[in-house]
Amino acid sequence: MQHTAHTAVEIIRAKRDGHRLSAERISWVLDAYTRGEVAEEQMSALAMAILLQGMDERETADWTRAMVDSGEVVDLAGLERPTVDKHSTGGVGDKITLVLTPLVAACGAAVPQLSGRGLGHTGGTLDKLESLPGWRARLSAAELRRNLEEVGAVICAADERIAPADRKLYALRDVTGTVESIPLIASSIMSKKKAEGTDALVLDVKCGSGAFVQQRAEAALLADTLISLGTATGLRTSALLTPMSTPLGRNVGNALEVAEAVRVLRGEGPADVTELTLALAREMIDHCGLSGVDPAEVLSSGRALSRWEDLVRAQGGDPDAELPEAAHVRTVPAPATGWLAALDAYAVGVAASRLGAGRTRKEDEVRHGAGVRCLAKPGERVESGQPLLELHTDTPEAFERALAALEGACEVTDGPVDPEPVVLERRTGGSET
Amino acid sequence: MQHTAHTAVEIIRAKRDGHRLSAERISWVLDAYTRGEVAEEQMSALAMAILLQGMDERETADWTRAMVDSGEVVDLAGLERPTVDKHSTGGVGDKITLVLTPLVAACGAAVPQLSGRGLGHTGGTLDKLESLPGWRARLSAAELRRNLEEVGAVICAADERIAPADRKLYALRDVTGTVESIPLIASSIMSKKKAEGTDALVLDVKCGSGAFVQQRAEAALLADTLISLGTATGLRTSALLTPMSTPLGRNVGNALEVAEAVRVLRGEGPADVTELTLALAREMIDHCGLSGVDPAEVLSSGRALSRWEDLVRAQGGDPDAELPEAAHVRTVPAPATGWLAALDAYAVGVAASRLGAGRTRKEDEVRHGAGVRCLAKPGERVESGQPLLELHTDTPEAFERALAALEGACEVTDGPVDPEPVVLERRTGGSET
Repeated sequence: MQHTAHTAVEIIRAKRDGHRLSAERISWVLDAYTRGEVAEEQMSALAMAILLQGMDERETADWTRAMVDSGEVVDLAGLERPTVDKHSTGGVGDKITLVLTPLVAACGAAVPQLSGRGLGHTGGTLDKLESLPGWRARLSAAELRRNLEEVGAVICAADERIAPADRKLYALRDVTGTVESIPLIASSIMSKKKAEGTDALVLDVKCGSGAFVQQRAEAALLADTLISLGTATGLRTSALLTPMSTPLGRNVGNALEVAEAVRVLRGEGPADVTELTLALAREMIDHCGLSGVDPAEVLSSGRALSRWEDLVRAQGGDPDAELPEAAHVRTVPAPATGWLAALDAYAVGVAASRLGAGRTRKEDEVRHGAGVRCLAKPGERVESGQPLLELHTDTPEAFERALAALEGACEVTDGPVDPEPVVLERRTGGSET
Repeated sequence: MQHTAHTAVEIIRAKRDGHRLSAERISWVLDAYTRGEVAEEQMSALAMAILLQGMDERETADWTRAMVDSGEVVDLAGLERPTVDKHSTGGVGDKITLVLTPLVAACGAAVPQLSGRGLGHTGGTLDKLESLPGWRARLSAAELRRNLEEVGAVICAADERIAPADRKLYALRDVTGTVESIPLIASSIMSKKKAEGTDALVLDVKCGSGAFVQQRAEAALLADTLISLGTATGLRTSALLTPMSTPLGRNVGNALEVAEAVRVLRGEGPADVTELTLALAREMIDHCGLSGVDPAEVLSSGRALSRWEDLVRAQGGDPDAELPEAAHVRTVPAPATGWLAALDAYAVGVAASRLGAGRTRKEDEVRHGAGVRCLAKPGERVESGQPLLELHTDTPEAFERALAALEGACEVTDGPVDPEPVVLERRTGGSET
């Protein structure tokens, strides 16, 4: 332990003083941290030094590999279909995974989607699917493989043996002010995706008020870092840069988003969700070499919907069951007549969370029926006093706190406004080494 | 706790992003840390952010006050003598406290010297005094006051209720690579000195291979930071900048240094120890307004020696007892004939520690007889093969590791060399606000 403490301090001091860390030191420190020999307070000092002094591409790739190596890697070798996955950096109303996963499976790929739960103002895919009675997020390794073979898709919780260094470090960064580091964010995402065994990955990197990264330039840097990490770790990777200044679709909240996803699968969904799903599906299909398949045709044919039902049933859920609804609904009127120019994603996300859809602590339970429906989207005409938002909750005392979050979230202008594009740009690797 | 965690993260992020911390936030975070509500991993992230982003004078003063406020303050009000203390930033062979404390007491001041133990290549005053049979480092508050009244001096261990925030933070910084921060070093020193209740303080700020700060410019910055902190917290403070490229005096090691200190008190000591002691004594006496007293006269009169004997007896020790001697002695010959140009302080400090005089971990025991005697000092003439160093140890297997530390530590030149001055400069506050 004396030797360990000494080596850990040397590594912290090297990064603190702006030096590059060797692959050997990175591997040593993450392994020792996972085994509890490097203490939490040492890792938090190192994380702060990394946040302030940076890590270059080579270091970030070594850091990612060391996090993969800290645990088990899912072995998907021998599957008949090509594997591909999608990761979103997180937004408000982002139910894309629910539509995209069965759609890409129906196109012929296998999608091993290991997802998380919501925290703060963003929802989590597993929380949303748990609105479906009976549906199970936990699958054994055998179930995961069988479902990938038979259905072509799983959406499930990551096994605790996947990248345990990342799991520990993620929790630590949350309480030590060391979240906002591009190398640490990127290596956290890519280590989990690499360990889940997929061959290819498409990233939905969001920017705007409802995203973790606000500025487009920073989102582009994150996208490029993720792509170069993918290349360095042998994962075919591309990224779409997408806006997150207003919620995706019209519904925010667990069951509300499942209902909207099903409408998209039926060809009745909001245009922005459909468009972004198809753009991501085309990227994924390209990575798999399934160039003859048109995802728009697979969606309109009903084959994606049918695959959704298979996916839900394979994990114990009933796709035909009624979804939970909140006990209390209150509407928020439009403040003026004109064109809706802005409906702030962050404010709506916080409101939905306060209504019961989200959690502020990991231990909290979500309410499946709670959330916000946006009755108008930016670019649409509104009349003063018409219902603009619908707030859904089981705990009516939450209305006031939700309304407080929505203060100033809507902007109505006199002239028409164009809605933002669904995709800002496609990136395939800006920084080559 | 949820609120606490949130506030702690906000404070960490503010410093991380280069903002100044308010007095209120500094007070809150150190209080919550002392009570265990701010976790070690949060404080280490904050310490790293402070190290890399800095704290200005106002923040450093607030940080110091908050560390004083985390515990008890010794109440020395009502003493008949003016109180004054000395702090050295630490060096090799630095037995100045042993001579200076009784000397300044004999000059008429009260010296509440709360000291520490050795770690790494430097020795600790308490370890040295424990060479004297029966001598006790721990005094009750009543004993401390009575000895200050009757003897005019104590040298003792700091009570654990003094600046507990500093105690926790010091141990944390040691294992998290966050030692080398001027604001953190300065606030650690000054919070302890402020809490021990002294009215005035003289600093011996060392630079060179055997000091914690190597460069003179950095030592000057540390001195000025300490002085401005003293001013801000109501402690009359001045500093001498002194060299620490070669050991002070000729003896390094606990009993060896006590023996040399007694020789200085008898007027037979090495010139550098005598000269530095008198320079510091004059500073201290000036702070107390005892301008008519000449410390050189007090030293040569034997009154300082007599006060030393009183001080040792008042803490249970026998000043006439024989000092422990190491069981094994080996000499190291001069490598060439010429003038000794350098005898590296750090190398000698590490060698003495390896021979048993120091400790690498807080739990280690020191051997009181172990250490190094320097038979020649830089500037002196040496003949090839003449004994240059004497290594003393109880564990002869340590000789090889000590010799390894001394590799290249001596430099002999053909022409005469001037020894360094004992005091580089006096500083009284360089950065005024």
